[in-house]
Amino acid sequence: MSKDVLVIGGIELRSRLFIGSGKYSSNSLIPKIVDRSGAQVVTVAVRRVDLDSKDENMLNFIPKECVLMPNTSGARNAEEAVRIARLAKAMGCGNWIKIEVISDTKYLLPDNFETLKATEILAKEGFVVLPYMSPDLMMAKRMRDAGAAAVMPLGAPIGTNKGLKTKELVKIMIDEIDLPIVVDAGIGKPSEAAEAMELGASAVLVNTAIASAGDAVSMAQAFALAVNAGRMAYLAGTGAVKDFAEASSPLTGFLNV
Amino acid sequence: MSKDVLVIGGIELRSRLFIGSGKYSSNSLIPKIVDRSGAQVVTVAVRRVDLDSKDENMLNFIPKECVLMPNTSGARNAEEAVRIARLAKAMGCGNWIKIEVISDTKYLLPDNFETLKATEILAKEGFVVLPYMSPDLMMAKRMRDAGAAAVMPLGAPIGTNKGLKTKELVKIMIDEIDLPIVVDAGIGKPSEAAEAMELGASAVLVNTAIASAGDAVSMAQAFALAVNAGRMAYLAGTGAVKDFAEASSPLTGFLNV
Amino acid sequence: MSKDVLVIGGIELRSRLFIGSGKYSSNSLIPKIVDRSGAQVVTVAVRRVDLDSKDENMLNFIPKECVLMPNTSGARNAEEAVRIARLAKAMGCGNWIKIEVISDTKYLLPDNFETLKATEILAKEGFVVLPYMSPDLMMAKRMRDAGAAAVMPLGAPIGTNKGLKTKELVKIMIDEIDLPIVVDAGIGKPSEAAEAMELGASAVLVNTAIASAGDAVSMAQAFALAVNAGRMAYLAGTGAVKDFAEASSPLTGFLNV
Amino acid sequence: MSKDVLVIGGIELRSRLFIGSGKYSSNSLIPKIVDRSGAQVVTVAVRRVDLDSKDENMLNFIPKECVLMPNTSGARNAEEAVRIARLAKAMGCGNWIKIEVISDTKYLLPDNFETLKATEILAKEGFVVLPYMSPDLMMAKRMRDAGAAAVMPLGAPIGTNKGLKTKELVKIMIDEIDLPIVVDAGIGKPSEAAEAMELGASAVLVNTAIASAGDAVSMAQAFALAVNAGRMAYLAGTGAVKDFAEASSPLTGFLNV
Repeated sequence: MSKDVLVIGGIELRSRLFIGSGKYSSNSLIPKIVDRSGAQVVTVAVRRVDLDSKDENMLNFIPKECVLMPNTSGARNAEEAVRIARLAKAMGCGNWIKIEVISDTKYLLPDNFETLKATEILAKEGFVVLPYMSPDLMMAKRMRDAGAAAVMPLGAPIGTNKGLKTKELVKIMIDEIDLPIVVDAGIGKPSEAAEAMELGASAVLVNTAIASAGDAVSMAQAFALAVNAGRMAYLAGTGAVKDFAEASSPLTGFLNV
Repeated sequence: MSKDVLVIGGIELRSRLFIGSGKYSSNSLIPKIVDRSGAQVVTVAVRRVDLDSKDENMLNFIPKECVLMPNTSGARNAEEAVRIARLAKAMGCGNWIKIEVISDTKYLLPDNFETLKATEILAKEGFVVLPYMSPDLMMAKRMRDAGAAAVMPLGAPIGTNKGLKTKELVKIMIDEIDLPIVVDAGIGKPSEAAEAMELGASAVLVNTAIASAGDAVSMAQAFALAVNAGRMAYLAGTGAVKDFAEASSPLTGFLNV
Repeated sequence: MSKDVLVIGGIELRSRLFIGSGKYSSNSLIPKIVDRSGAQVVTVAVRRVDLDSKDENMLNFIPKECVLMPNTSGARNAEEAVRIARLAKAMGCGNWIKIEVISDTKYLLPDNFETLKATEILAKEGFVVLPYMSPDLMMAKRMRDAGAAAVMPLGAPIGTNKGLKTKELVKIMIDEIDLPIVVDAGIGKPSEAAEAMELGASAVLVNTAIASAGDAVSMAQAFALAVNAGRMAYLAGTGAVKDFAEASSPLTGFLNV
Repeated sequence: MSKDVLVIGGIELRSRLFIGSGKYSSNSLIPKIVDRSGAQVVTVAVRRVDLDSKDENMLNFIPKECVLMPNTSGARNAEEAVRIARLAKAMGCGNWIKIEVISDTKYLLPDNFETLKATEILAKEGFVVLPYMSPDLMMAKRMRDAGAAAVMPLGAPIGTNKGLKTKELVKIMIDEIDLPIVVDAGIGKPSEAAEAMELGASAVLVNTAIASAGDAVSMAQAFALAVNAGRMAYLAGTGAVKDFAEASSPLTGFLNV
């Protein structure tokens, strides 16, 4: 498996578990979460980056070796997302940007239309753009054509821990789009992360499921193991599902002989 | 997690992945499967133990440090299962016995009634008895009362790779029975093994899913990771599932300030 | 469809929706529920039959043209079930008996072992025996051999409205047993009743889902429609499920011509 | 239920089952399908309307009392859809139009972006526009704002009979959008149509599931019953789903008294 790396924006990633930095009971947990999860990509809301405050600045809690993936949460349209992205770059957060454009205040579902517009603008400006989106093959193809480096379909609404409820649509995106597919939002348990990877997702992003666990640090490690398990199974090739049973051991004749 | 051991028959097990020894393209794969899976318990059909043949004797392929769990496959009733179990002990296979009593030739579903009878007899004879059974709370309580060391409900018919189709019934067994519950049969993918462990199963037994994988040795490792992931998540406590979304990052006001 | 009748105990039934008589806000609803559901078989707990009380006696609320199916709820073992069944017959409740033997006080799961014993005794006494059971092919075969007129596997624990959670096991019973299979317990919505019928169940028994609905009488009718829909679909033969799409209308060339 | 009508484009519909006209073994089946399904809305591919041919002209097989819903199948972008819609109107097919814009040749998934453009243009021209779309709350809101009379999210790819695989996303559309939601594509069995209606869908459109059934005419009737069942259950209010069982009949004490 030494060569199984995921390349996004020219960076080779060994870990296929991306994590968030919000919702933890204390920011001081973040370095431990990063360590135990093995995550190399950490997303952080640009709004939560306060360069003037040591305690409040999320960046102080994220190990330097991580790839920072600032996100535009709080943006309600493409224009706001673009402004936040540029701000992130100006603040020294690098050139990765996860686009979140959300105006639905109940389910927090992404706005594919505005997200596409922001993707187009930011990709042209040289950002490594990862749009968070409602799963939709044709819109994902447009994201790709607009220059997205990967696409991030949701498994279920943000923060619900409901799991991979959009499997049918995500699987088609995986099969039909020549870009990394990163399942983002909704994954609530390690088994669900493994399932996404078994389907062929390139990575998963997990935040709430870790932050809401009884023991967030152990849960981070559990997700790391599950993502590796799912990836390894995908590469190994899962066996066929059959309707009829087949005995693991031969059935007849033993005692009769 | 150093103290998270599973004790069955007085033996402390660190690995919660039990494996089978049948269906491999070559028996010579078995030592590698054991190694990569980290399995400590290996089941082998007594009928496949031929002490007179070096090449055919399954025991020669199972590392000595493993706990051997002979199974009574081929038995169609309690009497045959009892005879096979005694034969196994006489052959030096130890005192563990997985009871399989199967007369259904299409789906290979276990016969709980005969299995219970065999469990009672063999437990009295000092065997460490692990009955393979159709998931059923009340029959499992009887297995326990008859002296079973653990119970092994099926997730789906043997060899189907269908997954944890009996989740509702298995979960109740886990919650209500003070014995280790080992999900045996049907599990087809690492994500499904993780799911069983997240529910609180004590272990899972996997054979077909590994043997039928494109790369069986890698799949064995994938299952090991998934079982650990699921167990770790169970111990860490999974977060609540919610109907409504919650933003990982705060929603309002950022650019407006 | 004029000839599609279900025969149990020598009685030809046109309706495949059996209903319960418990849990209603008022017993006076029962005649309306029977009418709107079209049910011909109604189960009633023998313990709730009080021949001395007009208001309390459930029998007064069940139309005379219905087949009464007294049940042994309250029985914790075979002996109690047998006593209750005999009592029912002595009270003039006819010779049908639904055997419920339950000692699990949390999930109210049936005890297949004791149920089998009661089935054997009561079938010999000439009862039309319908055992309520945990889904299990081999135990169901034993129920059949003991003289059961039909078997009633649960879809989920009583009163949960969880739906057909045991589909995998029930489907096998349908395919392998030459007795009517009546899915009893757990069905919460008409769609789930339809699903059971599409699988080939002979009938379903619904109580909680109707009694707990906002409008129980309308829900009774909804279940009647759904059971008919599912039965009709089973007889008509459902189309194949495919992985790839097929256009309902041809795709190419129209405007290009 | 006398007042439970669905109003689209000013027309009051009693039937909530829309049907297609393609894929039948013979067009002569269509009048029977309409009759047995009770469908009032029938979609027909404009490309299949040949006014010069009596045998080939689909319109000759659709009863006059039906609302004709021509569809733009074959359109690969908004412009083509608009041209087909105008052609339909010129041919006397009325002012309803189901917009299908599909350029994905494998899964035949709709193109929400182009569909939105066509919706906007055609709504302004006075068409009653029903866009077929990938389920997506925010795009559906845009369809509404562009003048759609209803939105038609898919349950699964066209022609697969896979069922309501997008339930999570469709349910949110139902809850959040003040337009009729008509589930179109993927529904393979009556139980799945009932499920969509129980969720609160306003109607379902079924074609392949009827056309691919062993007996298409009976299946049409089965769907009609199931749609009514699901609608009735939705209006009646389904009971709560619970984790723990509740006995339909009281548990204790009967024989002990």
